Amino acid sequence: MNDRLLDTDTDDSVRLSVDEAQALGEKALIKLGYTPEEATIVATHLVDASMWGYEFAGLPRILVIADRPELKKPRTAVSIVKESPVSALLDGGNQVGYITLSHATDVAIEKVRSSGVAVIGLRNSWFAGRNAYYLEKIARAGFAAVYFGSSTPSVVPQGAIRKALGTNPMAIALPGKVNPFIFDMGTASVMSGEVLMKAFLGESFPHVVGVDKEGQPTSVAQDLLEGGILPFGGHKGYGLSLTIQALGLMAGSRFRNGDVSDFGYLLIAFDPGLLMPAEQFTSELQELLTKVKELPRQPGVPEIRIPSERGFREREIRRKQGILVNKRVVERLQQMS
Amino acid sequence: MNDRLLDTDTDDSVRLSVDEAQALGEKALIKLGYTPEEATIVATHLVDASMWGYEFAGLPRILVIADRPELKKPRTAVSIVKESPVSALLDGGNQVGYITLSHATDVAIEKVRSSGVAVIGLRNSWFAGRNAYYLEKIARAGFAAVYFGSSTPSVVPQGAIRKALGTNPMAIALPGKVNPFIFDMGTASVMSGEVLMKAFLGESFPHVVGVDKEGQPTSVAQDLLEGGILPFGGHKGYGLSLTIQALGLMAGSRFRNGDVSDFGYLLIAFDPGLLMPAEQFTSELQELLTKVKELPRQPGVPEIRIPSERGFREREIRRKQGILVNKRVVERLQQMS
Repeated sequence: MNDRLLDTDTDDSVRLSVDEAQALGEKALIKLGYTPEEATIVATHLVDASMWGYEFAGLPRILVIADRPELKKPRTAVSIVKESPVSALLDGGNQVGYITLSHATDVAIEKVRSSGVAVIGLRNSWFAGRNAYYLEKIARAGFAAVYFGSSTPSVVPQGAIRKALGTNPMAIALPGKVNPFIFDMGTASVMSGEVLMKAFLGESFPHVVGVDKEGQPTSVAQDLLEGGILPFGGHKGYGLSLTIQALGLMAGSRFRNGDVSDFGYLLIAFDPGLLMPAEQFTSELQELLTKVKELPRQPGVPEIRIPSERGFREREIRRKQGILVNKRVVERLQQMS
Repeated sequence: MNDRLLDTDTDDSVRLSVDEAQALGEKALIKLGYTPEEATIVATHLVDASMWGYEFAGLPRILVIADRPELKKPRTAVSIVKESPVSALLDGGNQVGYITLSHATDVAIEKVRSSGVAVIGLRNSWFAGRNAYYLEKIARAGFAAVYFGSSTPSVVPQGAIRKALGTNPMAIALPGKVNPFIFDMGTASVMSGEVLMKAFLGESFPHVVGVDKEGQPTSVAQDLLEGGILPFGGHKGYGLSLTIQALGLMAGSRFRNGDVSDFGYLLIAFDPGLLMPAEQFTSELQELLTKVKELPRQPGVPEIRIPSERGFREREIRRKQGILVNKRVVERLQQMS
């Protein structure tokens, strides 16, 4: 059925089976000091991101993690520092977000099971990975989730010439009939991982997506790292980004370095059954998505896209076909391990 | 101090004091069948919207309400149809949103006071007005709120040529030191009230913001009513709009007419004290906003804007200077009353 390859092999890329990619990732992560259990959690997330089609959110992230100053600092176990029946504030112990957010997700699901709703804050962590990864777990448990993640400065507020905001994603997941409905977006005009990846490879974006260190418009990835990325969607995208930075404060983002622009994760999860029987909701959601999917289209548009639909489809294909990883990335990872 | 007028009088406009506008609105609404108490709730909201600078969200809305088919159908009192300590589903009894959302806001505040968090759904209502109006009340009570409102079709999904989504706003409010921080945006590229107002006046937008009934790009307000508005911000804005339509389902939007594209309001409110002392949060928020406000600016940018900051400032000025209302709107309202 899927004989044709989803991704075209190139001279720059290596095709790895999911198992090979997982093993390569785990080995490199263990060399970085992670326990085998931690390495499995992180590598599983990264390989899943690649299966969704986000190459730069996959194994290349290990190279970025390796360069992060946080990795040289002491790490402690994730702990709950404040708690109520409907909430928890977690301290991530300077662990990478792949580990801490897995933990936070489990706490959220537990709380929703017992109280119907949970407000979870997570501080003292860094790098969230793909938010949809965590939210899928919550939605598959039958619950809805709204997620906001603030991060360290890489985005320039509208009208400014210096970065002060993170790429500050928001994501929302709802349980569905077969797969959940997951909407996941960054509020920056391009993904941070893509900027890092392009900078590593010395590449540019096809058009202006930010400013350089002098505040001049630029499309060069390396210059964006020194300057800053523009928010998506003009003043609305900027407003949303600033709002998410503020929500991050509530999750304790300032605790890490004393800076009001830092990593903070706020997750609100709840049982749709508070408002409506689960079966009814998933049926109505399916009805909405079908209605939108079947609308008459503009010329040349092959299908109306539904958030997360393509990702779920491609994940199953790449699970069989394997994933493409940049050759230089694979070499670096092999040297590490 | 504010001797210079914020809004310039024109031949097309009438300047009304806040009290005059309130009285004109209330009289017209009573003629439409509202009780004096209801008329006060609605007119107060509309005049407040004008004070914030949203002329088309002010008294002109009464003309739109007057034309709505819902007004001819029976109305019942707002009631809670499903409830838990952390949630409530309200039936709006076919009342206009200005009334039902005031009620929902009160229920949210009550629930957060007793349980720390509240998930509120509101169905069987129409027209929300300015979401920031309700969220300001929650934030002034010391709580945070995340709000999503789905509505009847006026927006065209990306790639489609027919409308299926509402203007589907989202809003987030956080308590602040003096004023709350309120971010409030529609996910359509232009505001529905502005389209209705421009169509009433036979006007166009300066550039393409949607499609006509044949699916062709257009800037003519009347054509947008027959075709549809584009989402803001490309595929991200579309994805967010569809997500909000789905969240509306959870609040019971399909209950009203059997359509999965209809009005549904989902409000999540919580006490920031679940995660952090209130004082600490408002201080850190102020620190973030000051940091952003004081960034070096692009040439020609007079100030970095902070969501809701200008509105709070202008509301106090217009409270003294009065508001401008389109002359034809005033005449129509006077004829009604």
